[in-house]
Amino acid sequence: MAPQLQGYFDQVDLMSDSFIARLAAAVAIPSVSADPELRHHVFKMADFLEKLLLALGATVERRPLGIEPARPTLELPPVILSRYGNDPNKRTILVYGHYDVQPALKEDGWATDPFVLSVDEKTGKMFGRGSTDDKGPVLGWLNAIEAHQKAGIEFPVNLLMCFEGMEEYGSEGLDDLIKKEAKNYFKDAEAVCISDNYWLGAEKPCLTYGLRGVSYYELTVHGPAQDLHSGVYGGSVTEPMTDLVKLLGTLVDNKGNILIPGLSELVAPLSEDEKLLYQGISFEMQDLYDGLGSETSIHPDKERTLMARWRYPSLSIHGIEGAFSAPGAKTVIPAKVIGKFSIRTVPNMEPKDVDELVYQHLNFEWEKTRTNNTMKVGLGHAGKWWVSSPKHWNFAAASKAVESVFKVKPDMTREGGSIPVTLTFEQATGKNVLLLPMGSSTDAAHSINEKLDKRNYIEGIKLLGAYLHYVAVEPQIEQ
Amino acid sequence: MAPQLQGYFDQVDLMSDSFIARLAAAVAIPSVSADPELRHHVFKMADFLEKLLLALGATVERRPLGIEPARPTLELPPVILSRYGNDPNKRTILVYGHYDVQPALKEDGWATDPFVLSVDEKTGKMFGRGSTDDKGPVLGWLNAIEAHQKAGIEFPVNLLMCFEGMEEYGSEGLDDLIKKEAKNYFKDAEAVCISDNYWLGAEKPCLTYGLRGVSYYELTVHGPAQDLHSGVYGGSVTEPMTDLVKLLGTLVDNKGNILIPGLSELVAPLSEDEKLLYQGISFEMQDLYDGLGSETSIHPDKERTLMARWRYPSLSIHGIEGAFSAPGAKTVIPAKVIGKFSIRTVPNMEPKDVDELVYQHLNFEWEKTRTNNTMKVGLGHAGKWWVSSPKHWNFAAASKAVESVFKVKPDMTREGGSIPVTLTFEQATGKNVLLLPMGSSTDAAHSINEKLDKRNYIEGIKLLGAYLHYVAVEPQIEQ
Repeated sequence: MAPQLQGYFDQVDLMSDSFIARLAAAVAIPSVSADPELRHHVFKMADFLEKLLLALGATVERRPLGIEPARPTLELPPVILSRYGNDPNKRTILVYGHYDVQPALKEDGWATDPFVLSVDEKTGKMFGRGSTDDKGPVLGWLNAIEAHQKAGIEFPVNLLMCFEGMEEYGSEGLDDLIKKEAKNYFKDAEAVCISDNYWLGAEKPCLTYGLRGVSYYELTVHGPAQDLHSGVYGGSVTEPMTDLVKLLGTLVDNKGNILIPGLSELVAPLSEDEKLLYQGISFEMQDLYDGLGSETSIHPDKERTLMARWRYPSLSIHGIEGAFSAPGAKTVIPAKVIGKFSIRTVPNMEPKDVDELVYQHLNFEWEKTRTNNTMKVGLGHAGKWWVSSPKHWNFAAASKAVESVFKVKPDMTREGGSIPVTLTFEQATGKNVLLLPMGSSTDAAHSINEKLDKRNYIEGIKLLGAYLHYVAVEPQIEQ
Repeated sequence: MAPQLQGYFDQVDLMSDSFIARLAAAVAIPSVSADPELRHHVFKMADFLEKLLLALGATVERRPLGIEPARPTLELPPVILSRYGNDPNKRTILVYGHYDVQPALKEDGWATDPFVLSVDEKTGKMFGRGSTDDKGPVLGWLNAIEAHQKAGIEFPVNLLMCFEGMEEYGSEGLDDLIKKEAKNYFKDAEAVCISDNYWLGAEKPCLTYGLRGVSYYELTVHGPAQDLHSGVYGGSVTEPMTDLVKLLGTLVDNKGNILIPGLSELVAPLSEDEKLLYQGISFEMQDLYDGLGSETSIHPDKERTLMARWRYPSLSIHGIEGAFSAPGAKTVIPAKVIGKFSIRTVPNMEPKDVDELVYQHLNFEWEKTRTNNTMKVGLGHAGKWWVSSPKHWNFAAASKAVESVFKVKPDMTREGGSIPVTLTFEQATGKNVLLLPMGSSTDAAHSINEKLDKRNYIEGIKLLGAYLHYVAVEPQIEQ
């Protein structure tokens, strides 16, 4: 039987002002994890959540993470673990969010104070750092609990919560904690839901079932012992930049084709089923052009564009360390230059196979240059891709929840970037992980004038609650 | 009849302590033209020279240059014009030098205080900013006058002097002054001598008859309106870095061959005569390796190495503006990237022809990329090459002077870099210009621990005086 949700929805509408006030109170705490000066506000934000959770009747355990390795004078903010409900007859769902935010200064170009939630009543836009990333979604779970209590509706699941305070600065310590708690605090979890990404566009909700991985490389070419003057030495010395530019030129063409032999063979073939998924997705080329601020796309059509972003690898050359990079002119022959490039990886590319092909290719091309400089290539960091089944009951429940709130079937999307915690949760718990976004693509997370639309927040609270109702009753037929 | 110089040489030896004390007094004035805080010391250095010149009986005219255009709160230091002698029966020689210096801080790694001349009595090295560049040579001319006076030897020429105080910061205003004074203050000049460069090695003097020019280009590739996240957009957008790297890869190979069609045809052919000049030059490949701090030379032999530095063009890629250039990793797709490269030019490359070939080549290669980004290439700055005849009487006189002081024939050298004032003097006065270095290649001008060897300073004073004796009597047979 489909859950009866109208009472809950009405209650959320009734409480919308207080939910917005709660978001304003959270935004007012500048919990910037990158800034040592503001670290105490990250702790304050942990206190804020703990107090709210306790008031709702949840149990809370603060997990200290010790000192920050790179900045040993700083203590890491705690991970807030919380449980609401302990009924063996209910499903247990684990949700994740983060309570820290990106840095923000009025001087960066914000139209309003970034740490004051500024609600534009006409457009419904609620501006403020953290509004969409990720304080809105985190409060969404808490608001859902409260609305159930106020409406006298039984909460449909046991809810496990994991809220961290370092997501915007490397999630230091989180992976170990998740691995440790998988068989402890999280042991009852039957599925995982993360609300920390965005709709593909501004209108239509989506469920996200895949993320690309990334392997980041540094390619170093080294010759003279120190930088040289091109007037004195130009023509007599083998210049590292010449070799580096040549090598970087062998990696990718401007149509996005990666030129590293063997790499494309690692990519999972496109099935007919998967192909069909792309046709229906609500996305226009104009959406891409709006994002780029130009029409310099590789593909002319939606399907190939989305596939290129989600299910095919890409290679980007990010820049060069050690060469002249300032405005103006400098007649230097750089002695040691480090090219930086990364490959966005997709199923079934094993990171170690990718490394091997990259090294093999660069060594081969290096030999061809017949240079007397020296070359070194190494992996900077790597994160694996993640793909879940959009047909899993966790997704099926979320899909029905979207329909009940938005009267539309969600798009099944993937994303081009990585959210490493997704894979960590999946591997540590062995359970299905769903990405259920609240905000939209226009929210400008990480940028100036970050906002969350009132509609996305309020309907989003309904969505999170509805999801918990559907996931409570969804039969476990498909994995 | 060869000049009788022993009396002058003996007098210089006799006065060497006072000449070193004079250099110490000059080094003690931190006349750093780049530093606004030290600008008053540049003026103090101008006063120092003016006072010395007047004491020697020279006439002095200070030419104010107005305010510094880029930093309008700063007044430019004056050009010191001076004349010693006004005998219509004598030749008139114009000499140039500069009294400002490069910045220097003890913290940069100096072993001694950069503004205290520190004489190592064992090695004869005299450390101090400006010792070799260019206070030693400037004082050399004044010391030569004084030694003549003290020895009671008639000064052989009328000496015109032009000393500027902005050489290390762009010689602001100097070109216009030289052009203006060519037919005024400098109108009697029959030849020009500049002592502001260095021996090719540490042992053997040289005369320098050529300098390469430089044409500096900026190659801009522009796509999206702002930097993009490679996770989100990688694979869907035509990346400007991919296009730029491809284009930069078409400019030069790692053997130093410039790949721009037509460019090598502009280079003056190597004559048999010229080829012979290179064989005798005192230079070992080890000297190059010492300079590089590595053995990553293009050519294995001296002759081709020196030709590559002096008489053939070279192309260096200096770096990229707008891409990621810091240590660490950033997964950015840069929206607008500016490749910087320059070509060292030689006879008979006309700068405008070089520009045309560069633009033509890049446009052709750009078309081949079939990209939808936009490209722009432009000239940053250009300075023309300069080559004089090493057989001119000005050089013949200097060569004899070297032999009389050092008992060895000087090497006839060119340099790979540009000293733009050389060409300005030649074009403005229409007279032969000679570069007559005092310091050696090991002096570390512009670096930490700049020094001038006592031998180079004292024998250099003899050399400048001897040059004036020989140039006074050298027949004007060869141009």
